[in-house]
Amino acid sequence: MRVLGVDPGLRNMGWGIVDVAGSRITHVANGVCHGTGTDLADRLLALHLALTQVIVDYAPDQAAIEQTFVNKDAVGTLKLGQARGIALLVVAQAGIKAGEYAPNAVKKAVVGVGHAAKAQIDHMVRLQLPGVQLAGPDAADALAIAITHAHHLQSAGHLSRAIAKAAS
Amino acid sequence: MRVLGVDPGLRNMGWGIVDVAGSRITHVANGVCHGTGTDLADRLLALHLALTQVIVDYAPDQAAIEQTFVNKDAVGTLKLGQARGIALLVVAQAGIKAGEYAPNAVKKAVVGVGHAAKAQIDHMVRLQLPGVQLAGPDAADALAIAITHAHHLQSAGHLSRAIAKAAS
Repeated sequence: MRVLGVDPGLRNMGWGIVDVAGSRITHVANGVCHGTGTDLADRLLALHLALTQVIVDYAPDQAAIEQTFVNKDAVGTLKLGQARGIALLVVAQAGIKAGEYAPNAVKKAVVGVGHAAKAQIDHMVRLQLPGVQLAGPDAADALAIAITHAHHLQSAGHLSRAIAKAAS
Repeated sequence: MRVLGVDPGLRNMGWGIVDVAGSRITHVANGVCHGTGTDLADRLLALHLALTQVIVDYAPDQAAIEQTFVNKDAVGTLKLGQARGIALLVVAQAGIKAGEYAPNAVKKAVVGVGHAAKAQIDHMVRLQLPGVQLAGPDAADALAIAITHAHHLQSAGHLSRAIAKAAS
């Protein structure tokens, strides 16, 4: 099972891909799509093209996208919403189901606590994916989101096996 | 010159098309794209497909999109942002430049005051486009945005003619 994690952003959209086999999670690739362009529409178009290329190149089976942090800065929330809409669209166009995880859920899954700092996430991603070369903090966050989804899949697997065992 | 106006929304995305020839503005079509689907990604996909079809059907030369009203409801702002990102993407994918107008600028251009009620916009759109059949309030707003852009084009035309006359 190959999982794409996406950390949406208008300037920098982080992405990370891991393979999940039983309890093993291995790194495949990570990077950052840049929303280059002079106006908003061009930037969204650049993000759409770049993230679509990632899906073409790596053919993930599932995706996980960070739930945008809704903060007090309404203009910032609107910008993030626009970038997030593009990420969700690209995944839907590829026919892939996308899990959505709140930032605190990602931190809890990767670091163990819901209020971890950026540096802790970076550190834990490196520990869980030995030898990984990170393309930057947004790519590290995207891998953290992919790892969160991987844990979610593993828990679901454990649960369904336990239910099958109890029923047999 | 054919202008597409879009009033972004996640459930209902209004669209309206007018033709602009000199000082004449005539109605071409209007409607609403529905963000149908069980999850957010499906809804964004449905909006993308439907708005793309409008562009294929009517081949507008320019577009105008309402600047999302950034309000105190952050969750609502995020949802609107996601829908707005799709509208901007569709227009950019078609290679069309999109003007952006704040709600108050649209009200001022169509009704004459910046704080007009929905019913006044509806009324003025019907007056300016005689015989128009409106597909609903979102479609009326979209036509108001297209009319605003048309006025903008007309002002630019007057200005460039005045400059050419002064220089001759």
